Amino acid sequence: MKKHSLIFKRDELVVLDQTKLPLKVEYLKIISLEQAFKAIKSLKVRGAPLIGVFAGYSLYLSLKNRKFKSKREFFKHLNKDISYLKTSRPTAVNLSWALDRIKRKAEDNSGKNTPALKEIIKKEAKAIHREDILLCRKIAESGIKLINPGDRILTHCNAGFLATSGEGTALSIIYEARRKYGSIKVYADETRPLLQGARLTAWELLFRRVDVTLICDNMAAYLMKMGKIDKIIVGADRIASNGDTANKIGTYNLAVLAKHHKIPFYVAAPSSSFDLSLDKGEDIPIELRDEREIRFIQKKQITPLKVPVWNPAFDLTPAGLITCLITEKGIISQPLKANIERGWGRPSKCGKSLLS
Amino acid sequence: MKKHSLIFKRDELVVLDQTKLPLKVEYLKIISLEQAFKAIKSLKVRGAPLIGVFAGYSLYLSLKNRKFKSKREFFKHLNKDISYLKTSRPTAVNLSWALDRIKRKAEDNSGKNTPALKEIIKKEAKAIHREDILLCRKIAESGIKLINPGDRILTHCNAGFLATSGEGTALSIIYEARRKYGSIKVYADETRPLLQGARLTAWELLFRRVDVTLICDNMAAYLMKMGKIDKIIVGADRIASNGDTANKIGTYNLAVLAKHHKIPFYVAAPSSSFDLSLDKGEDIPIELRDEREIRFIQKKQITPLKVPVWNPAFDLTPAGLITCLITEKGIISQPLKANIERGWGRPSKCGKSLLS
Repeated sequence: MKKHSLIFKRDELVVLDQTKLPLKVEYLKIISLEQAFKAIKSLKVRGAPLIGVFAGYSLYLSLKNRKFKSKREFFKHLNKDISYLKTSRPTAVNLSWALDRIKRKAEDNSGKNTPALKEIIKKEAKAIHREDILLCRKIAESGIKLINPGDRILTHCNAGFLATSGEGTALSIIYEARRKYGSIKVYADETRPLLQGARLTAWELLFRRVDVTLICDNMAAYLMKMGKIDKIIVGADRIASNGDTANKIGTYNLAVLAKHHKIPFYVAAPSSSFDLSLDKGEDIPIELRDEREIRFIQKKQITPLKVPVWNPAFDLTPAGLITCLITEKGIISQPLKANIERGWGRPSKCGKSLLS
Repeated sequence: MKKHSLIFKRDELVVLDQTKLPLKVEYLKIISLEQAFKAIKSLKVRGAPLIGVFAGYSLYLSLKNRKFKSKREFFKHLNKDISYLKTSRPTAVNLSWALDRIKRKAEDNSGKNTPALKEIIKKEAKAIHREDILLCRKIAESGIKLINPGDRILTHCNAGFLATSGEGTALSIIYEARRKYGSIKVYADETRPLLQGARLTAWELLFRRVDVTLICDNMAAYLMKMGKIDKIIVGADRIASNGDTANKIGTYNLAVLAKHHKIPFYVAAPSSSFDLSLDKGEDIPIELRDEREIRFIQKKQITPLKVPVWNPAFDLTPAGLITCLITEKGIISQPLKANIERGWGRPSKCGKSLLS
């Protein structure tokens, strides 16, 4: 298999179809904005940071081959494409963040002609891509300070190299721990309904030869009670300015369990996951997905066909349940709201050693 | 469909194959002890109380057509069959309870000849069956005192008419609430890995026209945080003398969540689920099941084939997290240990109205 979940080369965008994993490693060439939209919506491309990178390139490709009669028309199309792509998934903020960043860059250069603007957009998409790889690296450097040799770490959903352009957010810390300590024990929640843990995290950790054991989501509590979990690390889809975090459904469950069992609960995410325009988690829109995701597994019906179901893709973890946030700029400790406000470079009380 | 999950008539034992639900309603005629053993082991017949009833009849049928040269040989076979059946599932105590009860009855009548002993065993199996139906009724009468009109109740796994000979343990209270109040809102956990909630509880509640919404196990926490759950009721596979309870994996998770969200957490079970020989939950053996139950769903592979998994069928909920136990003899309130010791007829502080 190719080494990355997303490849952009010679104006060609190719992504790993994550709905096919772990049974098939299949790549998909993106040729239209509609296809890009569908790839996000159907979770062929997923993971908050990766969606941001993917959206940037998709936007560029959509504009690239189009002829524009005027710059007004160019910007009209740019705005239309951005609005369209943004609706593909409402919760993860990295998507909006990446598209808005590109839009701002184009507007800052509105004096230039359209071929130049296209190049600027491509350059910005590439910059976002490059930065995402670097951010993963830096998150790992921040997070490793919280990890001890022999730690047994529980993770939820997939926040690894499949979810980013680099080594991941939560899982980048795991990979760093493995490099630094020789081994690390990971428990992965299977993460119903779409089984990102069972399909993606299990696959990616096995691929990287990390010691992983898969459990069903409802087993995590018992595992904690048995004293088998030292730390919990998850990713994030959007973090409000007070530290409240939206992440894959089931994350809040783990945070409550962590509190009860006195286990540190860490959220690892790049700055692009922060939405400082929102005061609190309740302001984050939570995507409700198709009922069939619960009624069927891999196209096999498992429930009575017409049973009503409730299928939120994400939940909200209040800042108070998060031990610290791990970002590329360092660790943000409690009180999260005050420390997010003060900027991320500030010394923090969380963990044994902190960025200053 | 027939009205019951188990039917014994004219020396014929027929059971609903619960592994086929909800896609097929298929009955199975039991013709040998080996087949009975496999039916329990493979969860074709499941639910702690139902397994007890089923084991009684299976034992009778196994002895019925056999010729014995002596009473010594009869008792040798009886003991062998009982030991064999008991190993089919280690956690639920009702299985041992029913078989030991029949054995005691036979021993009390050891002066009689073998045809008479066979009849005595059949009679005792029928008594266990009849009592199980009555126990469900009485559990409902105890439990309804804790339920208010409009309550939204979360349940886990299946503790309904599929799990017993009557209307169930946890679900008998739901059915009683529906009769008494006209309607009741139920949320059902799908209950990975074997999806008893998605397959059985959803099916049975729809069949009985109860307002049910299915969720994945990891969604319960968020539902509680949104204030959508008033009470939690689950069944039990074994209750130690201090009130610690073994039940389907995920039950302990709910109990911790209930504490955090200040939601009453009830366990409904007949006296046959109590194992007063055990001081505490840690003494209850927890069945570990096949890894393939997590790796495959309905024969479809969902994980990397060789990923290590951990698959306990049950977990332990400490007595301290249980608001009260609901039994056929009334409600057992906190402190559970003392109140179990003092006998179940004692007045209790739990709920608005109590048996005395």
